[in-house]
Amino acid sequence: MKSLFAAGFALLATSAMAADIPEVEAWRAAHEAQIVGQLDELVRFKSVAADPAGLQATAAHLQDLLKARGFDATLLTDKDYAPVVLGERKTPGARRTVIFYAHYDGQPVTPSEWTSDPFVPVMRTGIDGEYVDWKVARSPLNPAWRLFGRAAADDKSSITAFLMAFDALKASGIKPSVNIKVLWEGEEERGSAHLADALRPHLDALKADLLLIGDGPLHQSRTLTLYFGARGGTGFEATVYGPLRALHNGHYGNWAPNPASMAAQLITSLRDDEGRILIPGFYDDVRPLAAAEKDAIAHLPPVEDGLKREFGMGRSEGSDGLTLSTMRPALNVQGIRSGQVGAEAAGAIPPDAVISMGYRLVPGQVPAHVQQETEDFLTAKGWTIVHAPPDLATRLAHPRLVMLKWGGGYPALRSDMTSAAAQATIAAAGGGSPVTLLPMMGAGVPIYLFDDLFHIPVIGLPITNHDNNQHAANENLRLKNLWDAVNLYARMMSQLKW
Amino acid sequence: MKSLFAAGFALLATSAMAADIPEVEAWRAAHEAQIVGQLDELVRFKSVAADPAGLQATAAHLQDLLKARGFDATLLTDKDYAPVVLGERKTPGARRTVIFYAHYDGQPVTPSEWTSDPFVPVMRTGIDGEYVDWKVARSPLNPAWRLFGRAAADDKSSITAFLMAFDALKASGIKPSVNIKVLWEGEEERGSAHLADALRPHLDALKADLLLIGDGPLHQSRTLTLYFGARGGTGFEATVYGPLRALHNGHYGNWAPNPASMAAQLITSLRDDEGRILIPGFYDDVRPLAAAEKDAIAHLPPVEDGLKREFGMGRSEGSDGLTLSTMRPALNVQGIRSGQVGAEAAGAIPPDAVISMGYRLVPGQVPAHVQQETEDFLTAKGWTIVHAPPDLATRLAHPRLVMLKWGGGYPALRSDMTSAAAQATIAAAGGGSPVTLLPMMGAGVPIYLFDDLFHIPVIGLPITNHDNNQHAANENLRLKNLWDAVNLYARMMSQLKW
Repeated sequence: MKSLFAAGFALLATSAMAADIPEVEAWRAAHEAQIVGQLDELVRFKSVAADPAGLQATAAHLQDLLKARGFDATLLTDKDYAPVVLGERKTPGARRTVIFYAHYDGQPVTPSEWTSDPFVPVMRTGIDGEYVDWKVARSPLNPAWRLFGRAAADDKSSITAFLMAFDALKASGIKPSVNIKVLWEGEEERGSAHLADALRPHLDALKADLLLIGDGPLHQSRTLTLYFGARGGTGFEATVYGPLRALHNGHYGNWAPNPASMAAQLITSLRDDEGRILIPGFYDDVRPLAAAEKDAIAHLPPVEDGLKREFGMGRSEGSDGLTLSTMRPALNVQGIRSGQVGAEAAGAIPPDAVISMGYRLVPGQVPAHVQQETEDFLTAKGWTIVHAPPDLATRLAHPRLVMLKWGGGYPALRSDMTSAAAQATIAAAGGGSPVTLLPMMGAGVPIYLFDDLFHIPVIGLPITNHDNNQHAANENLRLKNLWDAVNLYARMMSQLKW
Repeated sequence: MKSLFAAGFALLATSAMAADIPEVEAWRAAHEAQIVGQLDELVRFKSVAADPAGLQATAAHLQDLLKARGFDATLLTDKDYAPVVLGERKTPGARRTVIFYAHYDGQPVTPSEWTSDPFVPVMRTGIDGEYVDWKVARSPLNPAWRLFGRAAADDKSSITAFLMAFDALKASGIKPSVNIKVLWEGEEERGSAHLADALRPHLDALKADLLLIGDGPLHQSRTLTLYFGARGGTGFEATVYGPLRALHNGHYGNWAPNPASMAAQLITSLRDDEGRILIPGFYDDVRPLAAAEKDAIAHLPPVEDGLKREFGMGRSEGSDGLTLSTMRPALNVQGIRSGQVGAEAAGAIPPDAVISMGYRLVPGQVPAHVQQETEDFLTAKGWTIVHAPPDLATRLAHPRLVMLKWGGGYPALRSDMTSAAAQATIAAAGGGSPVTLLPMMGAGVPIYLFDDLFHIPVIGLPITNHDNNQHAANENLRLKNLWDAVNLYARMMSQLKW
């Protein structure tokens, strides 16, 4: 789909360059092929959960890249998870230490959905543009071009920007202002389930004053963005039971219970058409926005009209606007399946209906409590909840039976936007220019985990275009984002001071 | 699935034999292999819509089978539809003429869902029983055995019963009491769309006093059944639109409209959990049950507890019971698809949701009016209805957009249970024993079409077991049903008098 939104903000994005360090920007302009080449090289590593050897090889290569730059670099390895890459490079005389986090694993791929091989990067002139051979193109490359490949955006672009920024500073003779630590993990896309356990024995080595998360997209205005939190989440799959086998709906229609209709009732009892969650008291635990957070939201660049056009939306849920909406908890219907539609539709009452629903949680909410509230609510609505497929006796004994399978469960976090570390981060990121400040990203990143583990400020430092298809086919990174990111990372390494 | 219900009624079903003509029953008992062989032979013809040559070959063979029995037999042929087999055999001195209708086409097959080849009949000892070789088995064959194959029940069993009953009467020297006409069509499973046009030039040749429909299952009590009508129907597929592409529900959840949630609202606005249709005035056109119809329903054998166990149902929709429920119009959700569930579930807002819904209509209701009422109701609920995929401008202009595709559309019919023809049919079918009388079958058969065309009483003469999987994989016929059907058809040919 042609992005209707992209063109309008091209000028805005260019203005961010006012803050760039001249020597770094000059190095970047002179090394475009090398920068793209570094990202291209990383994307060719098959670092996806389905390929443990690919994850291992990627981690080993990242270790080499750090060592080549004078870092102490080690791998935390275990048979149960992809290696964690740790790196450290001290800066003589620096008071502060900053951890740069990113993940090197990518989302699973379904190659048939891609227009090119997910692990053989290709350059295109735009999201649906012509294919171009960047290796023979003259510099400057068109900044609207995009490199396509799994993890090209999420997060190998951040890793590339980190490495190239380090090289640019070195080539320019600019000394870092902080001690630099690196934490690159390989199972974020599977939920970072082993990360805390892997890191816990190394907390001394990871001692720092600030953690920057090189994950997530820029604000849709394509402006330089920092975020100070992320929503949490939990989710469930609900299976609603009808007759044991599909029944002719002529002979049994409006007598045998229709599970698709019951599933619809279950959904509409939980959330309304405006996205309001209908469980009584559900919003009671929600921590209100602080004054600085409200102020930041009030100053966000306007994007909604453009996004509505881009997405073909004739309305939005609720009337709070995009950002305030994502500061609230959400209950999303992710999928529903029952019976057949299209050419396979039959005059039958389906035997069951399966619904996938996901909560997005906000600070103050506890996943286990939300799960309990949900079950209590459904029970009060007449549902009998089971957690394994019911036997015949159970089916016969309960008029409304639903099997719930819970997945995930992690809290939200919004860290203090007014702390000294936060103010220093804003100043360094902007280099004097304004920065788009998002109190909380709508999507989840392992920010709560780092807060728990390190008790230091954790701030999101996104660099990718918002329209990067990061969890879908044809993931891509705009070159403009990569150029800006090299400059941004150079500022974060050399201008952070507090 | 093991039928929990089958065993309980085995004795009841046996009692129907009290009425059998002794000579016919003796012939049947002596010719079990021949009777099964006739059905086996017919099932091997691939008479499904996907195989026009198979339909042609079946019709030609049926014509031969009629000619061999002294019938005038012709085929109505046309490039647009499967041949219609017409047959006639006059009975000297008979005052009345009866048309025996059945269809020789079967439902489409998905062979991967079958446990055996749909066109190579196999005998099993029960619905999930052992495979047995009926060709080497000694007579009497176990009447609980079932022959599996597409159309083995629906309707090649009726055609077989007709042929074998005719042979039994002839062998027994029993003269038919009526002139016999045969109408066997080959596109019932596609909605008999061309049947009226095909028959209209031949109305003189088809002149008769009664039409018996050899289609549909027996009552679930496995007792001898006649039905006097069938529900009508119409249906639609609704596509509800969300964002143009799947969106990350962390970044956009409870701002971008969720089409699965909207689809749930659409369903629950149209029908409640008890099957009540919520369109104001929807039931106004419904013709009330006549006294004879109410009386017949009150005398139906009780089957609900058994069916609930068989189907694993912890409740039913409504409290009227099965038969009264199917005397009302129904709105069935046949299927719904949106986003992904299971291992493929993603944290995404799906781009659309597709719902397949089917109305079952009752006498008094006009399909076109029901369609209009539905669209008016949805419009009043805030939906904008389109009948083709919307362009971007249409999406942007309308907050709630749904594309409706209507299919089908045929009225219901309940014919007079007290007419002389009806009383004669009941008497001949029962041979003095009680008959289960169903004022209207829940499912559709082309009964309204014959009523329109011929203006004669139309009565359903079902023979198959209700658990025959007729519109699914592993369609099957119980031998007991075939044995009873040979006797039943012999009575209908030789004892019908009014």
